[in-house]
Amino acid sequence: MSEISVKTLIDQVRAGEIPPQIKMVADEEGIDRHELADRVARGEVVVPRNIKHTHIKPCGIGRGLRTKVNANIGTSPDFPSLENEMKKLKAAIDAGANTVMDLSTGGDLDRIRRAILRESTIPVGSVPIYQAAVEVTRSGRPLRDMRAEDLFSVIERHCADGMDFITVHCGLTRSALDRLIEGGRVMDVVSRGGSFIVGWMLQNDAENPLYEHFDRLIQIARRYDVTLSLGDGMRPGCLADATDRAQVEELIVLGELQRKAFEAGVQVMIEGPGHLPLDEVEANVLMEKRLCNNAPFYVLGPVVTDVAPGYDHLVSAIGGALAAAAGADFLCYVTPSEHLGLPDADDVRQGVIAARIAAHVADIAKGIKGALDWDLEMAKARKRLDWKRQIELAIDPEMARRIRASKPSGESDVCSMCGEFCAVKNLNKFLEFIGRKRSE
Amino acid sequence: MSEISVKTLIDQVRAGEIPPQIKMVADEEGIDRHELADRVARGEVVVPRNIKHTHIKPCGIGRGLRTKVNANIGTSPDFPSLENEMKKLKAAIDAGANTVMDLSTGGDLDRIRRAILRESTIPVGSVPIYQAAVEVTRSGRPLRDMRAEDLFSVIERHCADGMDFITVHCGLTRSALDRLIEGGRVMDVVSRGGSFIVGWMLQNDAENPLYEHFDRLIQIARRYDVTLSLGDGMRPGCLADATDRAQVEELIVLGELQRKAFEAGVQVMIEGPGHLPLDEVEANVLMEKRLCNNAPFYVLGPVVTDVAPGYDHLVSAIGGALAAAAGADFLCYVTPSEHLGLPDADDVRQGVIAARIAAHVADIAKGIKGALDWDLEMAKARKRLDWKRQIELAIDPEMARRIRASKPSGESDVCSMCGEFCAVKNLNKFLEFIGRKRSE
Repeated sequence: MSEISVKTLIDQVRAGEIPPQIKMVADEEGIDRHELADRVARGEVVVPRNIKHTHIKPCGIGRGLRTKVNANIGTSPDFPSLENEMKKLKAAIDAGANTVMDLSTGGDLDRIRRAILRESTIPVGSVPIYQAAVEVTRSGRPLRDMRAEDLFSVIERHCADGMDFITVHCGLTRSALDRLIEGGRVMDVVSRGGSFIVGWMLQNDAENPLYEHFDRLIQIARRYDVTLSLGDGMRPGCLADATDRAQVEELIVLGELQRKAFEAGVQVMIEGPGHLPLDEVEANVLMEKRLCNNAPFYVLGPVVTDVAPGYDHLVSAIGGALAAAAGADFLCYVTPSEHLGLPDADDVRQGVIAARIAAHVADIAKGIKGALDWDLEMAKARKRLDWKRQIELAIDPEMARRIRASKPSGESDVCSMCGEFCAVKNLNKFLEFIGRKRSE
Repeated sequence: MSEISVKTLIDQVRAGEIPPQIKMVADEEGIDRHELADRVARGEVVVPRNIKHTHIKPCGIGRGLRTKVNANIGTSPDFPSLENEMKKLKAAIDAGANTVMDLSTGGDLDRIRRAILRESTIPVGSVPIYQAAVEVTRSGRPLRDMRAEDLFSVIERHCADGMDFITVHCGLTRSALDRLIEGGRVMDVVSRGGSFIVGWMLQNDAENPLYEHFDRLIQIARRYDVTLSLGDGMRPGCLADATDRAQVEELIVLGELQRKAFEAGVQVMIEGPGHLPLDEVEANVLMEKRLCNNAPFYVLGPVVTDVAPGYDHLVSAIGGALAAAAGADFLCYVTPSEHLGLPDADDVRQGVIAARIAAHVADIAKGIKGALDWDLEMAKARKRLDWKRQIELAIDPEMARRIRASKPSGESDVCSMCGEFCAVKNLNKFLEFIGRKRSE
């Protein structure tokens, strides 16, 4: 059986081995390889890697590591162009994303996915149920006619193509759905994958096939050593729906499924909200860690207000910084076009930078090794009025260079905000004056 | 004596009166007028208003009120145009700033200040020491020749012109400066006003005149009922300098001075950092409230990482949201051009929107009356796929409209991110299906 022949990353660390991916991540993070292997063996860190997708730079996600950033790309029925997606992939990688997800629902889905997998230098994820739903729809059948077989065959196809991680909404059970209907919500379900499953469950009056056949999912994941990202179909779509019984019920189930997959040697992370008021962010992180055995927490946003379409990258940077500081491990970016349209390459760039800022702010707050050194270097360059170095150290050097060039000062060693009245420049002079006076 | 004849807002509320400014602010905030008057009488809320500046919409700042946003405008030696500043003033007001500050250091400072005071429909603040330093410099004298008289005459001029609040760096004492020099800092002093005072103190080996002659400042403030915004000349200019002895020493002095001015019937707020790691933000707010008798806290940023020039509006939205959620009352915006150059009108717009998002996120978190209602309206409009209403409710309707229009969907009731696979649209259909089935 081919299933048995694959030694997953977890199998390897359990056997006391240090696979090359672990070595690379440990060196990159500046931590001990054995310590990292232990965290993977405890399920607290994942290193997504599909045995068929070997040309990527591995990325560790979880406890004690730098907070990572994912960029969602992919076509929609309105914008099916592969070429655009290749531009967005490049924009994401250039801006410093750690992973990308292909969420395509328009055009030739197999071709687009394979192109992204081929071109990407970083781990790639997907949400196979999108393609399953698109294929059923394209064949002219209603969604309720989708069979478990349709879904699992797409999952198998994605894994066989080399997906490093896949989102599967396994915790959206009848029980969670009953709680949603009973409790009442303003926005009901806003997860696209979640909406397909809920629609299917409601119309067929049946249990979620991804929950019912979770063992089959584990088998597929083992076959290619794919990391399961257990999706939050019940994530709140507005602040008013946050942290309700439906959401927490799903999270409890995800913790149970995490344990099962992890014991079977499959890496697992847990996806989280979503729209949350700022004062509920920390509690949501704590809940995930407690209910899901300290598995890595992958949050979308959190979006901490509903009223800022056009600025949801900024809104999510607020929520993401606080979530990651509280222990979330992986931030799914949100772009300025969230709630308004499909992101283009510039939206992707803005989204990645915003999420990277949030991640770095959090890494400083949670004391990640080396995080503050970057800021110290920048502060020293500012003190020296060393503009070349300030631009080099900027998280987006091109943006910093462009803004500075657009509003030049007549004096080259300062900026045009204060010109000759620059506090830093003048204080350097005053201190020099005092130093001279004292040494006289 | 003209001093005695002015009844300040604090005098009035202490006498049990409810001045019109208090009525207007209480109605605007939806709180009881007597409760608001009590908070002003306790020094926990300020309503900046100069008796010479009567055509503005008053703005309450402090405990239990909505978090307010200030936009800094003003010329620099490199960009001295009055016309640009008028554009920036309009941009700030249109974007929803609650106050503006004129920080001009270029061009005809008296003319620019008077034009801003005349045109503004919202309270205006200034930092008089800038003009005092500029005038000394323009007269060809070194800064150390500035006399206390030069400084106080500019302060008097600003107040007589109608400034509603002025920043005065009174707490930057010899003792704080000794602690700065003793403790050592990466960036020393980055406050422009603070750098003038430190330069003057170091070169003259003398105490800060704004501290020494604080009684004179109180007299001037009383004469026009100007609110004193006690500046933080020692604010950290990088994360490495945060929450050090120099900063906290200054804050202790500010609390002492707040008490003195407040007892004399002058409204006072306290300015705060600056660059702070995310995990030090809450402690800084708590310290201000404890050390400064619960006076309103006016924070710049906080800037929670040094490495993102070009994105400091976003960085400050992260810090500002957390600070305001912890009790800060007033956010000074930061624009994308911070650390790079003088902001233009578009920077002003971006800065105000970012700070307003932070303020609103915090207002939800701290349970400000009515804050969450806005989000609920937006959520309901999203659920109805009511795009007209979503745009109207957006914090920046023009931006939301522009993004949506730039990436249209073929189906008018959804957006191009998901098109026909819109979770909201499909779920509405599924739930309708179930409703029909159940009623059959």
